[in-house]
Amino acid sequence: MTYRPSLKDITFCLDHVIGMSASYNSPAFPDFDSGLRDAVLDAAGQLAGDVLAPLNRAGDLAGTRLEGDQVVIAPGFLEAIKTYAEGGWYGLAADPAYGGQGLPKMLEQACFDMFHGANMAFTLLPTLSQGAIEAIHAHGTQAQKDLFLPKLIAGEWSGTMNLTEPGAGSDLAALTTRAEPNGDGTFRITGQKIFITWGEHDGTENIVHLVLARLPDAPKGTRGISLFLCPKFLVDTEGSIGARNTVKCVGLEHKLGIHASPTCVMSFEAAQAELIGPPNGGLAAMFTMMNAARLAVGFEGVGLADAAWQKAQNYALERRQGKSLITGQDYAPIYDHPDVRLMLAVMKAKVEAARAICMLTASAIDAVKRGEDAERHKRREDFLVPIAKAWSTDRGVEVASAGVQVHGGMGFIEETGAAQYYRDARIAPIYEGTNGIQAADLVGRKLGHDGTAAKELADDIKAFLNSDLPANFKAECEALKSALAAFTTATDHLLAQKAAAPLDVAAAATTYLTLCGDLIGGWLLLKGAVAAHNQLETGDKIWLTDRIKLMRVFYAHVLSHASAHVAAIKSGYGALDDLTLNLD
Amino acid sequence: MTYRPSLKDITFCLDHVIGMSASYNSPAFPDFDSGLRDAVLDAAGQLAGDVLAPLNRAGDLAGTRLEGDQVVIAPGFLEAIKTYAEGGWYGLAADPAYGGQGLPKMLEQACFDMFHGANMAFTLLPTLSQGAIEAIHAHGTQAQKDLFLPKLIAGEWSGTMNLTEPGAGSDLAALTTRAEPNGDGTFRITGQKIFITWGEHDGTENIVHLVLARLPDAPKGTRGISLFLCPKFLVDTEGSIGARNTVKCVGLEHKLGIHASPTCVMSFEAAQAELIGPPNGGLAAMFTMMNAARLAVGFEGVGLADAAWQKAQNYALERRQGKSLITGQDYAPIYDHPDVRLMLAVMKAKVEAARAICMLTASAIDAVKRGEDAERHKRREDFLVPIAKAWSTDRGVEVASAGVQVHGGMGFIEETGAAQYYRDARIAPIYEGTNGIQAADLVGRKLGHDGTAAKELADDIKAFLNSDLPANFKAECEALKSALAAFTTATDHLLAQKAAAPLDVAAAATTYLTLCGDLIGGWLLLKGAVAAHNQLETGDKIWLTDRIKLMRVFYAHVLSHASAHVAAIKSGYGALDDLTLNLD
Repeated sequence: MTYRPSLKDITFCLDHVIGMSASYNSPAFPDFDSGLRDAVLDAAGQLAGDVLAPLNRAGDLAGTRLEGDQVVIAPGFLEAIKTYAEGGWYGLAADPAYGGQGLPKMLEQACFDMFHGANMAFTLLPTLSQGAIEAIHAHGTQAQKDLFLPKLIAGEWSGTMNLTEPGAGSDLAALTTRAEPNGDGTFRITGQKIFITWGEHDGTENIVHLVLARLPDAPKGTRGISLFLCPKFLVDTEGSIGARNTVKCVGLEHKLGIHASPTCVMSFEAAQAELIGPPNGGLAAMFTMMNAARLAVGFEGVGLADAAWQKAQNYALERRQGKSLITGQDYAPIYDHPDVRLMLAVMKAKVEAARAICMLTASAIDAVKRGEDAERHKRREDFLVPIAKAWSTDRGVEVASAGVQVHGGMGFIEETGAAQYYRDARIAPIYEGTNGIQAADLVGRKLGHDGTAAKELADDIKAFLNSDLPANFKAECEALKSALAAFTTATDHLLAQKAAAPLDVAAAATTYLTLCGDLIGGWLLLKGAVAAHNQLETGDKIWLTDRIKLMRVFYAHVLSHASAHVAAIKSGYGALDDLTLNLD
Repeated sequence: MTYRPSLKDITFCLDHVIGMSASYNSPAFPDFDSGLRDAVLDAAGQLAGDVLAPLNRAGDLAGTRLEGDQVVIAPGFLEAIKTYAEGGWYGLAADPAYGGQGLPKMLEQACFDMFHGANMAFTLLPTLSQGAIEAIHAHGTQAQKDLFLPKLIAGEWSGTMNLTEPGAGSDLAALTTRAEPNGDGTFRITGQKIFITWGEHDGTENIVHLVLARLPDAPKGTRGISLFLCPKFLVDTEGSIGARNTVKCVGLEHKLGIHASPTCVMSFEAAQAELIGPPNGGLAAMFTMMNAARLAVGFEGVGLADAAWQKAQNYALERRQGKSLITGQDYAPIYDHPDVRLMLAVMKAKVEAARAICMLTASAIDAVKRGEDAERHKRREDFLVPIAKAWSTDRGVEVASAGVQVHGGMGFIEETGAAQYYRDARIAPIYEGTNGIQAADLVGRKLGHDGTAAKELADDIKAFLNSDLPANFKAECEALKSALAAFTTATDHLLAQKAAAPLDVAAAATTYLTLCGDLIGGWLLLKGAVAAHNQLETGDKIWLTDRIKLMRVFYAHVLSHASAHVAAIKSGYGALDDLTLNLD
């Protein structure tokens, strides 16, 4: 077994945990209905299971290599890139005016959930292209949109994000790449960028690099950054491919995981480029890409964790060893040992919680697009994005690690495949803003000075608790109420400290983010459990009962830590002050 | 920077957290005193830093390969094996009657702490040899001891443990390797063993395989297992090397980590062997090796985590990025960002807690050897071994993962070295009994029916709390008291459920083990903080103050979860009952 598309889990999350029917036949998504939804998910599941998953291990083994300035990608990937483009997958949520399908973000990300689970290294290519599509769509001129979007959406060309430099990783203010005007409205870019995902490859006929650089006399810091579009091959106004531009890959990184995704050192040597958006307006444009990319990375955590869980679950059902305390059977499947079962249940509960958190984020994006209470939903989206990114990817690493553990000695052997998830999962908490940066963003900009988004979230959870819930969830309602009180305490504490004690807030950020994710995950799992309970008479009773049990496992093993998180949050910067930890 | 021997941290733990002076000039350790202790630690630090650490990355890259039935090890390793043997390191704690130095377990393990931190893949070779030395010493005949121990202790030969078979990993009852009597008191062994660490190599002139196998007509299950000694080269009664025995390596595993340690598939084809201990008494003999090996694996977690922390700490002090909230400095070391500092502080606090737990275990072994209240100390040792093994190695994985995170994008690049710790650390929770097996052992055999060892431990912590502690640790004393109450509640709960609800106990085992480790770690860190406090006037004030701060970080971020663990423990098997998690 390699990968089984998680259609049932995803559909349950869409329909019964988050809800997507508000988008059906809405003015924002006029052609979208449940029939189309199912058709798209089925096709995405087939692509994931039949095309992408079989290449996952082969891609890990073959990796990529640099020949001259050409990147040679893993066997089978060229064909898969073509299949992917032909299926129209680049343009799922893109503007129909440029060839996109204009479908909801939730549906797009439901597909990516499966694509990442099947083959994360591959799926980074379209993920990056989508970031480029969104940035050009939001900030490009009409001419730029007309020229580049159809090609990117058709998958004839791909896109990249060129942000990081050796001296400027998390701190974009420090970047030094220069853009000099040619006098005709175009520019020449010079500098080096590192960690450029799919920065060079021959899977598409052109590559559209979006590049952060400084104009001459630009202000220092982040206010002096502009966004440029720099194609691998120059393009005339008709979109015909011209001469090779002077941007090239000069090195590939040797990485812990995602071996099939080329991570390039890119050298820009007076490379021809055009400005996207206003001069010195690069940071805003970049955040357009970033916001989309951060949610996408959250789904990497979800998809990978789900795949890691599947592999471990499958192994535990097949591998027989020892006498089961549960069944009394000798030579029992190791799933019938309580400790192993608990590991798998916690893994799957975390997967479903992370999926629900990321889907809730996507649903806020769709609600903004539908124009319903747009300001509130935009606040909700902004608040959830760092949680979706960081909580899901931290859980991704934990679940992948537990997946190795369930396999015992076989988990440490590369052929098994569990180790690849452990390696691949490790990048997601790092890129697109480390999880520490996400936490700083959450307690800084996103919490704001009045904590409106946090309070609105608390109101929604309160409203859920006050709704008519079945009596057999009484204990969990109490637990959720406690966790909500912990969240409110923590939020009020951070808001009160913001001005006076910024160091305490900064030291509490990561724990606060974890608490937020635990709470939202717990809320949504209970919502799903209630829905499952209400369908028990008519639905797949075993599968639905599992949803209730997974929620209970999450409450006992994850949500139970809410008040401990508050203690940690309140400890703040205290013990860190003057901590030197000098190395001899 | 590769690796800095943690002499100061280790010595502080030995002297001020655990205490080793009871062993000085004692009848059990007649030549041992603080001067010898320091000399041994210094020499071990040099070996770790100068010989083993420089080979760590090279060994990871080169790995091992099989040529015919010869295993070729990584460049430099042959010389290091010779240097190691010449230094007399195999025999640190071994019986002087056979060439050992008869030093305390605590000192031996203090050295291994550094060896593992410097190069875990290498250090597995002497770790396995020590297991063989202990087993032969405890269960061999006088002739076997005279013949094999001097060679193993001198490091001329090495030892292995051949337990696992494809169908018998955690479940030794299922093993099928056969031993047939030759009629002259010797045996022929036939079967296949897997996951044999350093099972074949040419670093020593002979390899002594200790092998579990079944005699003809042996009872089924674990009562029918015997232990055999099966050398690579046959040996005459004088210890001279003879013909090649029919045991060989037929395959090497391709692993996630510890690449320089050959993990062998061993084939025994009527290989000549002799019995160690009584027929069908193999399990007891194996547990002699296992107990020692489990503590040794705990120290792998400690050493590796310490090394991972060092590398991350060093990076955080050197890497500059962004404006510090702490100092106001632009382009500040990332250690001056509160979130990064917190990560590093939690990492180091876990390292020191794990080190103290493992050292407490070693000190119980030494106390048994000194004959002081031997029954109580043996109970203490038995209770602590699974905690030392599992808690330390789980923390090892967490710390190594955080180490990658501190490095940001560079952490994902293999050249940096942080990723190697993340890969190497992952095996330790799996082998020598998975951490799930450790937890089952803890709540089963070790907790027993009356929980004596747990109660004795609680008494010791109570006595510490009732001693005259400085007033500025009042908050931590309260927190420790709460955690102790949580531990007592959990222990009583498990003892009460043992007979009636074994599934609930089994499902609670891992969380109970975590709670035990958190509590013991918290106790010992506070003990160290009190000692540091009392030396502030005379000692290295900055370094000592750090000990107090690390303890506080541990209390806020780890020990604060004690009551959440109790909630999880009490939830027991409940939600796991009838949980199916079928894959479609």
